[in-house]
Amino acid sequence: MNQTAPATFAEIRGLLSDLPGPDLKAGGAATAREALLTKPPGALGRLEELAHWLAAWQGRHPPRVERPYVAVFAGNHGIAARGVSAYPADVTKQMVRNFIDGGAAVNQLSALAEADLRVYELALDEPTRDFTQAPAMEEEDCARAIAYGMMAVEAGIDLLCLGEMGIGNTTSAAAICLALFGGAAADWAGRGTGIDDARLSRKTALIEAAVAKHRPAMTDPLEVLRCLGGFELAAILGAILAARLARSPVVLDGYACGAAAALVHALDGHGLDHCVVAHKSVEPGHARLLERIGQRPLLDLDMRLGEASGAVLAIPLLKAACACHSGMATFAEAGVSGPA
Amino acid sequence: MNQTAPATFAEIRGLLSDLPGPDLKAGGAATAREALLTKPPGALGRLEELAHWLAAWQGRHPPRVERPYVAVFAGNHGIAARGVSAYPADVTKQMVRNFIDGGAAVNQLSALAEADLRVYELALDEPTRDFTQAPAMEEEDCARAIAYGMMAVEAGIDLLCLGEMGIGNTTSAAAICLALFGGAAADWAGRGTGIDDARLSRKTALIEAAVAKHRPAMTDPLEVLRCLGGFELAAILGAILAARLARSPVVLDGYACGAAAALVHALDGHGLDHCVVAHKSVEPGHARLLERIGQRPLLDLDMRLGEASGAVLAIPLLKAACACHSGMATFAEAGVSGPA
Repeated sequence: MNQTAPATFAEIRGLLSDLPGPDLKAGGAATAREALLTKPPGALGRLEELAHWLAAWQGRHPPRVERPYVAVFAGNHGIAARGVSAYPADVTKQMVRNFIDGGAAVNQLSALAEADLRVYELALDEPTRDFTQAPAMEEEDCARAIAYGMMAVEAGIDLLCLGEMGIGNTTSAAAICLALFGGAAADWAGRGTGIDDARLSRKTALIEAAVAKHRPAMTDPLEVLRCLGGFELAAILGAILAARLARSPVVLDGYACGAAAALVHALDGHGLDHCVVAHKSVEPGHARLLERIGQRPLLDLDMRLGEASGAVLAIPLLKAACACHSGMATFAEAGVSGPA
Repeated sequence: MNQTAPATFAEIRGLLSDLPGPDLKAGGAATAREALLTKPPGALGRLEELAHWLAAWQGRHPPRVERPYVAVFAGNHGIAARGVSAYPADVTKQMVRNFIDGGAAVNQLSALAEADLRVYELALDEPTRDFTQAPAMEEEDCARAIAYGMMAVEAGIDLLCLGEMGIGNTTSAAAICLALFGGAAADWAGRGTGIDDARLSRKTALIEAAVAKHRPAMTDPLEVLRCLGGFELAAILGAILAARLARSPVVLDGYACGAAAALVHALDGHGLDHCVVAHKSVEPGHARLLERIGQRPLLDLDMRLGEASGAVLAIPLLKAACACHSGMATFAEAGVSGPA
């Protein structure tokens, strides 16, 4: 990350005013080569699109996925004290230890995908405030978390997978979605780690109350983040922006990660053009969110774990897209006839 | 393959009478371990189911995917001379050469998945008969192709990916589906390699005529195969049966492969219990077929290439299922709290 870390929302908005677009030359080289490869046009479907998209956002042809990087941001949420999760808030820190020790799902998936995994803790002993009572964060703390997320994006990462850990953060995600997209709280509240009907009712009511309370203060997406978000979600927003500036394509994980991404989309309708959504979560709000931000997930495997697990599971698909694009013979090379 | 190669349909029916079931002990060990792993119950969705399914059909716990094998069967179809494909029939042989030379999509995908790929040619210079005029095959030739497919399944394969190459074979697949499932020919006919409206109309009419012509002769699924199928589809049917006998879980590719699998399902409603469907093809008949045989595909990436490409693309998902199942820490090992 070559940018100076932003310290205020005004500075973050400044970064947004100058987001780079895709490299049309590299993207064009990919589409030109595609037409020559030994298969019916379009027969590899989304693998073809992924290869072109990677070329355009890596700014090179052929595209390559050799240094995938996985960043998992962990934060704690004041709302967790209200009984919105099946697990106690201590589990955030315990799972961070599990990530470091190599025992979580994302560790196994990262090893398989030959991806570097790093976990970023955001003041786990200082949760955000219970957002039914007060804004979750002060602007300064929120901006610091965004800047921390930006720092995770080093030069030379050819694919960045983003994910989170934070007990209570699907409640935060649902509140963000309700604030951004409207509808009913029940449209956005889900069972998260697996809560029962009673907890789901409580969670839904808290989400509705929180959005109603902060409505006047939430003048733009960054204010939505400050009032309803969490440190790890702010960091993901920062990482998405930094990846755009560094021309690293991004793979987004599930619902909480998606809510952070939706904030970027609300700030700039093209702000997620360098991102692909790895999978559709079981959490029902996620499919609604993806529809609103115009993203079609790559996988739909009934997952709802977070911790970047879905994003990392998609890495082999992106590697496959590159392998086919680069390695396949052309019709001329292979002596294969074209259409009759 | 320890079985004696069957030479008649009666001998093939004999094999079907004694198909082994899943190993309930290995499957049970998988579900027992699953409950201990550091994630909310069910949070890895279909990855969990895949791990249990692999354990049950490999007959061991933990399941492993270390020796995946890809078998691509190639055959030629008399119906191809009727202009049902965008490509000339010569392309079957040319693509087999491309597979051997390493230039096709499935080569790149197999290399990435560290899978052994082998291509099986079935008398490419002797296509099946045009099935609008006569049964595609004699019983003897059809049984020989089934036996040839069975021979592809060696001992010790821990995952078998099946696919095909054969210009004209989506016409054959559609005819098989119309014969098995009914409906209209238009429900099962698709654009295959990418045919235009005029060719699609011709293809649809030929499928309808063929099924009408052979209706009285098609007394059971093997007769459907003989009248409307192709050598590579017969071989896939054989490979599915041999894998069941050898306790190798199978990954099925797209529409043509699916039609061969549907014949197994018609012969025995549990005949595909050791198979998973890798992806949903663009070919519209494929989704209908999957519904009829009760299979939910793992991927939906708008692919329609065949040559086992979708099946091989799913290998990393199965490896991921094994990696999470075997490698994750338990709650006790990691010191992570359970539900509050």
